[in-house]
Amino acid sequence: MGKIVQCVPNYSEGRDLAKIERIVAPYKRREGVKLLSCEPDPDYNRTVVTVIGDPEGVAEAVIESAGIAAELIDMTAHRGEHSRMGATDVVPFIPIKEMGMDECVKLAQRVGEALATQHGIPVFLYEEAATKPERTNLAKVRKGQFEGMPEKLRDPQWQPDYGRAEIHPRAGVTAVGARMPLVAYNIDLDTSNIEIGKKIAAAIRHSGGGFRYIKAGAVETKGIVQVTMNITNYKKTSIYRVFETVKMEARRYGVGVTGSEVVGMVPMEALIESVEYYLGLYGFSKEKVLETHLMD
Amino acid sequence: MGKIVQCVPNYSEGRDLAKIERIVAPYKRREGVKLLSCEPDPDYNRTVVTVIGDPEGVAEAVIESAGIAAELIDMTAHRGEHSRMGATDVVPFIPIKEMGMDECVKLAQRVGEALATQHGIPVFLYEEAATKPERTNLAKVRKGQFEGMPEKLRDPQWQPDYGRAEIHPRAGVTAVGARMPLVAYNIDLDTSNIEIGKKIAAAIRHSGGGFRYIKAGAVETKGIVQVTMNITNYKKTSIYRVFETVKMEARRYGVGVTGSEVVGMVPMEALIESVEYYLGLYGFSKEKVLETHLMD
Repeated sequence: MGKIVQCVPNYSEGRDLAKIERIVAPYKRREGVKLLSCEPDPDYNRTVVTVIGDPEGVAEAVIESAGIAAELIDMTAHRGEHSRMGATDVVPFIPIKEMGMDECVKLAQRVGEALATQHGIPVFLYEEAATKPERTNLAKVRKGQFEGMPEKLRDPQWQPDYGRAEIHPRAGVTAVGARMPLVAYNIDLDTSNIEIGKKIAAAIRHSGGGFRYIKAGAVETKGIVQVTMNITNYKKTSIYRVFETVKMEARRYGVGVTGSEVVGMVPMEALIESVEYYLGLYGFSKEKVLETHLMD
Repeated sequence: MGKIVQCVPNYSEGRDLAKIERIVAPYKRREGVKLLSCEPDPDYNRTVVTVIGDPEGVAEAVIESAGIAAELIDMTAHRGEHSRMGATDVVPFIPIKEMGMDECVKLAQRVGEALATQHGIPVFLYEEAATKPERTNLAKVRKGQFEGMPEKLRDPQWQPDYGRAEIHPRAGVTAVGARMPLVAYNIDLDTSNIEIGKKIAAAIRHSGGGFRYIKAGAVETKGIVQVTMNITNYKKTSIYRVFETVKMEARRYGVGVTGSEVVGMVPMEALIESVEYYLGLYGFSKEKVLETHLMD
């Protein structure tokens, strides 16, 4: 199959399923593109779509879909709990197979330019595709949200990477970027004391002095406390390392770790890294996994 | 892609590369069939071929290839260190994706019948495809080797499953079967004392009172001793369980385990089982591995 890219576009519509159906239609009818999931959230009034396929096909489908979203979603009337600045709010490209980050950055540039020229939507490039340091962080790019964008675009510091410095009247502004796959990972503690979970989360996360690619917090669920995290670069901060560190920290409070779970999907390499660690496996690679050869 | 079967035919020619090339040609030119490896061994005078693909295509390619092997290999002149009874010596079918063992048994039956009717080769079905208990074990089926087959076929107990009770004059007899994927796995001990390796191998293998699906021995390599094994059913005897048991046994001799290696290929599920164990992972499955969705 050659190169495979993943794309997780977020749309500012999570209630009207008929509209969502029309917005995701381009991902269903295109050869070489596969819609993995479509998760509308009515409270957020937002839909997260996961799609994989050949870069060419995915890029074309995203451009087409963003055009439909610009027609169907009116941001001037949008209400929802999640911050947002556009009908197609964010479009991250993620390298999956036979692709480097540089190729995802180029794909983000191509799609960003197309959104501006074909649909009149101003575009900020973010994360690995960012053109200025302050645009790396999506939260900073989106600050001010849809309502604040007309003013933000007047700031010389916040000229869009593509398109004119003027919002699309109904579809707002879109952020297009490139990033590593996220691994959403939770670790269960055998305690109902949320404070212990919070302390452990603080110890492992980047902002607390922990691992560089961990964003973590603590939640109460199923009568226990869970350390819940995003691993933003699983190649550099491995799952097993975080798991063993949480076990080690938990011992300090006399608390045990009872298990863990992956939310959503995980790249095979992230699992391989953990198997290599625990089994002391040497000379191993993806090529030794039989299924790798079923993908070509 | 739908159903995927693996097939590992063994041919009694490991020296004449031009002949081997012609024998494996059917695996290269057929749509939906992929030749993963072709390993000629001059000492054994035998070539092990690994191929995957859709059951229909793989079956047809095997039948064609066995016909070519029957033309090119003269068993009456064959010398080699590995036991063998036919030009195409053994043909195991292994379920990989969306297939059960029952379907592999049917495939073995179909191919076995075709080898007899199209090429005049008598066929024994073995392992999961065996029609009598004593035919389950390939070693028993092959006992007597090529030279002893004419006499063996006169025994009412050893009438072939397909074809007449008479060897193909040059190509001998072929065993066609169905089995689980094998995992070839080695564990390194930090000792050069082969006796310790032998004791540990005896403790973990089925014949020594150990795990049902482990065949194991000890070898000296790279200045250390390795416990070398075949896991014949990784679903029922997991990699992590063997690894931890070897560590536990090694402690008895004051010996450490320094690492391990997988030889050849391993199914993704065998790795997942070990990750689940070490990370206490719950709610996990192949479907959560991103790459699984690249195969459809």
